Amino acid sequence: MTVRTIGIIGGGQLGRMLAMAAARMNFQTVILEPQANSPAAQLANRQITAAYDDAEALAELAKICDVVTYEFENVPVSAAETLAHNVPVYPPPKALEVAQDRVTEKRFLNASGIETARFHAIDSQAGLDAALADFGGEGVLKTRRFGYDGKGQKVFRKGDPSTGAFAELGGVPLILESFVPFVREISIIAARGIDGDVRCYDPTENVHRNGILHTSTLPAAIANETAQAAREAATKLLDGLGYVGVVGMEFFVLEDGSLIANEIAPRVHNSGHWTEAACIVSQFEQHIRAVAGLTLGDPVRHSDCVMTNLIGDDIDSVPAWLAKPNVLVHLYGKTEARPGRKMGHVTQILPFRD
Amino acid sequence: MTVRTIGIIGGGQLGRMLAMAAARMNFQTVILEPQANSPAAQLANRQITAAYDDAEALAELAKICDVVTYEFENVPVSAAETLAHNVPVYPPPKALEVAQDRVTEKRFLNASGIETARFHAIDSQAGLDAALADFGGEGVLKTRRFGYDGKGQKVFRKGDPSTGAFAELGGVPLILESFVPFVREISIIAARGIDGDVRCYDPTENVHRNGILHTSTLPAAIANETAQAAREAATKLLDGLGYVGVVGMEFFVLEDGSLIANEIAPRVHNSGHWTEAACIVSQFEQHIRAVAGLTLGDPVRHSDCVMTNLIGDDIDSVPAWLAKPNVLVHLYGKTEARPGRKMGHVTQILPFRD
Repeated sequence: MTVRTIGIIGGGQLGRMLAMAAARMNFQTVILEPQANSPAAQLANRQITAAYDDAEALAELAKICDVVTYEFENVPVSAAETLAHNVPVYPPPKALEVAQDRVTEKRFLNASGIETARFHAIDSQAGLDAALADFGGEGVLKTRRFGYDGKGQKVFRKGDPSTGAFAELGGVPLILESFVPFVREISIIAARGIDGDVRCYDPTENVHRNGILHTSTLPAAIANETAQAAREAATKLLDGLGYVGVVGMEFFVLEDGSLIANEIAPRVHNSGHWTEAACIVSQFEQHIRAVAGLTLGDPVRHSDCVMTNLIGDDIDSVPAWLAKPNVLVHLYGKTEARPGRKMGHVTQILPFRD
Repeated sequence: MTVRTIGIIGGGQLGRMLAMAAARMNFQTVILEPQANSPAAQLANRQITAAYDDAEALAELAKICDVVTYEFENVPVSAAETLAHNVPVYPPPKALEVAQDRVTEKRFLNASGIETARFHAIDSQAGLDAALADFGGEGVLKTRRFGYDGKGQKVFRKGDPSTGAFAELGGVPLILESFVPFVREISIIAARGIDGDVRCYDPTENVHRNGILHTSTLPAAIANETAQAAREAATKLLDGLGYVGVVGMEFFVLEDGSLIANEIAPRVHNSGHWTEAACIVSQFEQHIRAVAGLTLGDPVRHSDCVMTNLIGDDIDSVPAWLAKPNVLVHLYGKTEARPGRKMGHVTQILPFRD
């Protein structure tokens, strides 16, 4: 199969950066996105403006594209599966199924030999109370589906009342996760090619603010063994899913350096944005290479760096960032700076090693 | 003035790379280009499909853009001057006037204290014969205008007959340049901001094949004094023109390390493509920063590198380049690989210094 046109479901900044990387490699891109003039559309050849599960739009996408990928994990699994009958869909729909439900995700990780926090699936207030009792009254209650950037979560500390909490989170299927006594958070961006080749970028250390990624720092302050464990977990996950494309995988690091997998994102990931500044092949190009069936790039890092997200009003700091040396500024073409909205990011390369 | 929309005259690969850099900084771009679906249009918000001197199209460009720039030096000066009555045009039309005519260019450089080859303006066969006699029967005969990539040139060595040569080059105004006994060719990419700030990238050593740039290598094998002389010449040129934007300036290096300016390009330049791989701020972002009135970026180079142009069938070598580590592949979205056509380029980063 020679790929000429790549379909991308989702028109946000990740789709935008994928479209830019695809253009640089002579691929045409078509975005499927309900919001007209999406951030991705500016850099793509075409946008089909329709819902992600619009049957007619999906049929058109299958017809005009040689392969279809996506920039977010809440693409309806049924839509991805229908599409996959007519055109290769990478990453495989199975990855969406696993990533869309925190219980399915943890069960899949555990079955792959990857450790996670202890958890209980919660379907009622009584179930919640029993689960809290099992965890000594502590834990994080989350919706099983559609949570992101810390939304749809409630933390219980010893003695906190649980009354009404199940209803408060919408009466939808929930998960209670036990607390993990972590000392830091890291993530790894990895890719798997159609030929099964797996390549991992260096793990990054992440700091969140209000549940949203704030900074990613390279190198992470972890031992080589911890970095190696992250690579091995990512490889198990990718092989287990018969994956094609880039994945983002978040971990908690314990005092002894061991890892607890937190969550996976079957797509390019915010904690991999630094790769466009500190590597020759960015995560975006790597994903395009993978889904187009090309050789994966070398994920080596030429510089240390810190990526900082620009959230909401942080966009006002752009002139100051532009004035600093060794900073790559990347903005997403969004006109309105709402609180909590990702407007762009900056990556500062740390003093060159010479 | 707050710039939101940047007009770019010319829809080739340089316009494409400018549009990509502009998008990353939240600018909208509008391309003026007679060829529909140009390489630049794919990455721009809009293309006005019309001739570069189409009065109506230029009026529209002035109306919808906050600043207009160009990606090639043969934009009609009158069009640029008309446009400049209604919207800032950077680099200034004066730079076009100087760069479009090899005699005007050399006179301007000499008047700015920058050495060039000796030359004679040639307007007849008799003028050519007299000029050749002055240069001992040797020299390079070129059209004064519209020459690029070695086109419209004829080399005379001692004893070569000159009969009919004036007519052969079209009976248009010509220039005879004396031979320069150079040991290597270098170029420098420099930028000047609206505030007069000048920033220079490191000089690159260039190898041409069939009159077309083949490779650019960093660092150039030149003494610090030679690099400094290139920076000083670029600064004189930019200040002399009241320039805003990026310029490419080519030099011959003599045995003793002194420099002879060859030609200038009032735009981003093929010999600066390496900056996207080996610098944090590329020549494309630097140009966009300059014309949009932003602070210029730090032109520091984090790695040594070699940029290689992919000309015509060289495009077939892309899979081999993709398989090498530390190579950034950049293709221009051109579907037909004609001989001599620039299809893309690759920049290989040399072993990291650690």
